[in-house]
Amino acid sequence: MPEIDALLAAIRAAAPGVEVRTGADLAALHPGEHPDNLGGSAVVAPRDVASLSAIVRICAGAGLPVVTHGGRTGLVGGGISVAGEIVVSLKNLDRIIEIDPIGGVAVVEAGVTLEALQQAAAAYGLEPGIDLAARGSATLGGMASTNAGGVMAFRNGVMRHRILGLEAVLPDGGIYRDMVRVVKNSAGYDLKHLLIGAEGTLGVITGLVVKLDPVPAASATALFGLPSTEAALTLMGLARATGTLRACEAMWSRYFGFTAQHFGWRETSEATPVHLAIGLGGETDEALLAVLAGLYEAICETYSDTTAVVAGSVQQAHEIWRLREETALMYRAFPAAPSYDISVPLDRLGTYLARIAPGLEAIDGLSPFIFGHVADGNLHVVLDRPGSWMTDARRDAVEQVLYDGIGAMGGSFSAEHGVGSKRIHALLATGDPVKLATMRAIKQALDPKGLFNPGKVLPVL
Amino acid sequence: MPEIDALLAAIRAAAPGVEVRTGADLAALHPGEHPDNLGGSAVVAPRDVASLSAIVRICAGAGLPVVTHGGRTGLVGGGISVAGEIVVSLKNLDRIIEIDPIGGVAVVEAGVTLEALQQAAAAYGLEPGIDLAARGSATLGGMASTNAGGVMAFRNGVMRHRILGLEAVLPDGGIYRDMVRVVKNSAGYDLKHLLIGAEGTLGVITGLVVKLDPVPAASATALFGLPSTEAALTLMGLARATGTLRACEAMWSRYFGFTAQHFGWRETSEATPVHLAIGLGGETDEALLAVLAGLYEAICETYSDTTAVVAGSVQQAHEIWRLREETALMYRAFPAAPSYDISVPLDRLGTYLARIAPGLEAIDGLSPFIFGHVADGNLHVVLDRPGSWMTDARRDAVEQVLYDGIGAMGGSFSAEHGVGSKRIHALLATGDPVKLATMRAIKQALDPKGLFNPGKVLPVL
Repeated sequence: MPEIDALLAAIRAAAPGVEVRTGADLAALHPGEHPDNLGGSAVVAPRDVASLSAIVRICAGAGLPVVTHGGRTGLVGGGISVAGEIVVSLKNLDRIIEIDPIGGVAVVEAGVTLEALQQAAAAYGLEPGIDLAARGSATLGGMASTNAGGVMAFRNGVMRHRILGLEAVLPDGGIYRDMVRVVKNSAGYDLKHLLIGAEGTLGVITGLVVKLDPVPAASATALFGLPSTEAALTLMGLARATGTLRACEAMWSRYFGFTAQHFGWRETSEATPVHLAIGLGGETDEALLAVLAGLYEAICETYSDTTAVVAGSVQQAHEIWRLREETALMYRAFPAAPSYDISVPLDRLGTYLARIAPGLEAIDGLSPFIFGHVADGNLHVVLDRPGSWMTDARRDAVEQVLYDGIGAMGGSFSAEHGVGSKRIHALLATGDPVKLATMRAIKQALDPKGLFNPGKVLPVL
Repeated sequence: MPEIDALLAAIRAAAPGVEVRTGADLAALHPGEHPDNLGGSAVVAPRDVASLSAIVRICAGAGLPVVTHGGRTGLVGGGISVAGEIVVSLKNLDRIIEIDPIGGVAVVEAGVTLEALQQAAAAYGLEPGIDLAARGSATLGGMASTNAGGVMAFRNGVMRHRILGLEAVLPDGGIYRDMVRVVKNSAGYDLKHLLIGAEGTLGVITGLVVKLDPVPAASATALFGLPSTEAALTLMGLARATGTLRACEAMWSRYFGFTAQHFGWRETSEATPVHLAIGLGGETDEALLAVLAGLYEAICETYSDTTAVVAGSVQQAHEIWRLREETALMYRAFPAAPSYDISVPLDRLGTYLARIAPGLEAIDGLSPFIFGHVADGNLHVVLDRPGSWMTDARRDAVEQVLYDGIGAMGGSFSAEHGVGSKRIHALLATGDPVKLATMRAIKQALDPKGLFNPGKVLPVL
């Protein structure tokens, strides 16, 4: 592709130190969570924002689409690329510019991983207030682009609630810079909130100011076995009311049994079809153990079948969280298993689960793995079938069950993974037509040539 | 104006039960915080969203601008209107649709006042997590439109962080409906965050889903007198670390002396140029009094001149908060006194205050009233001059002092009041050109005729 070669030469000249990969160099990269992430003609990794701006101007001038990559951990095909597209990797924009312990903020480049920020902030007794299993590879820019959620969202909000300032390169190469460090800012349209969650279709996020919170002095972890979803919700409510709850992850029986068996965990019981992994934070270990004891006592008053295991060491806490986080096991058993990411208002969660179980069972006997963030109503549903099982008809049938009434009840068909390429049909099928028309108008206004991450979030214009 | 009459007849026909005021009926209304709010040709108050949509379509068809009013408490002229414009009042969209204690949300129409929601939520032991002095008249729709902040923002975020779902009528009359009840939602561009803070220039917000939090069982209020801004920031940090802090309002000497004298408060002292009104929330009165005693002891270790008054009754607490909230006194002494609303990162607050004092003093001997939300760095600065004192040259001189370097340090020239008509020049003077161009592109895309709140936030297209 001589045109691409000329373009890459221009990029090398305009972007000092840029890493460029094509051909075998490109093929040697790991594609991440989606096999088609690296289908583009080249991967370029600039070392600063000015270089990125120059690269975008060159691509815009040549009419070449730009697909942005962070840690390649996206689960909805938001990073897939095809020949003729340029992949921009932010891996070299990985500097933590500043941790400000007085203002309680971190200033970072977008390619910094969540784990790197967690570690840097911990040196000041602070944390970014957001956590998820992919912390080691997910970048803050990617998490902003998908508006990631994770385990602490019920308490601290999602990624957009943790971001005070943002810098991005827009489709025309202009640099939008609004690195505000304060929570109060009503100075015109807050464009960062348009870029957050836009999955690279309106801009490439390059820098962020992230809120930090103090890390609690002590923490505790426990695993409760509960007789019903209702009991799990009751325990969650009790735990939340103590003010110490930091994570409340539910695992229903199919998921828990499957994972627990793999790790040689104790025998699972039909008396406890729901397990809750609970993380607490507070002043002292003793106080938190007392909270756990109080929770166990309180829940047993109504649900006497409840079981509880309290982690007695960091290693035991790790073993409990591993049950929840090692979701790769499912995908090893069912390669490319179809997965869903649903938000359900808490007062509907029980009836929703009771409705979808028979609905899915009626489709080829599906018995899905279900787990998720029960304090905010975010359920992950993974089908016990390989990706190859999925036909259009089966997809429609499954989505009919899972998405039926989800909008009317105030939930969402995409809680924290985004739309990407995988959920566009769901957005088109369930989205408010006025919302869709307005999204198109904004895309047209900011990216009239449709060059930023084409075919993601919205169909190609 | 026969055209207006015909238009109002069409509105009456299309919007059942709509209230319409013109002429003397209109003149009888209170204009609220800005004398020019009611300069429009008519005020129409529809009773439902469908009627509002019909009204907007009629106005759009006739090319008539629409200015939206909530409680008319805006402080930057965001609601002013002129002949030929139609004012849409949301006063009849004042229903609290639902308080959901399980999901922890309220579903409201936009004309509900903050106080009405606070009272309705209190019946369930819940609160909207945002509070400000104008609670009795400020509406939730207006607070969303200006992205209001208030006293709890350091802890709970600003208005946009409390809103989960939103409904609005767009400039073409379309109804955007996204009444999500969950915190996790990554289903395409989050347009509600574009409408929040847009001050009615992109849409008329008609409905909201607002997050609710539990009201603490006990509360305590104290007033500390401190020897310096540094001491006040230290005390704020100590108070925040207890986890019980709900409000931390600072009053510097000119403001405190003026207000305290009015209310016959104890003699003020030069040894304590900064006062902090602190509100705590927790489990028991005893525990909170112990926290206050601990704070006093801790701060006195470094700043022995510190004084403290602890409210012993609801009445005494009211008297402390009144010192902070009765800002009308200043405006009575200095009618239409020029006021500013600035966000400064906490690590710069001390140097900022030290810099602006001599800078303002050099302008005609100004000795401003300064007070604000010290835990989030939001300062309110009111000049000790009537509005008539202000000339263009004086305005430029004052803004040169107050806004110098504010963007580079990560602060904001408009923390919580918005841009309205009053701060457009500040936005144009200090705003990133890429941000301004993008704002214009979005305004053009959503409101190509420029009919929604013209001349606010951005100059007329």
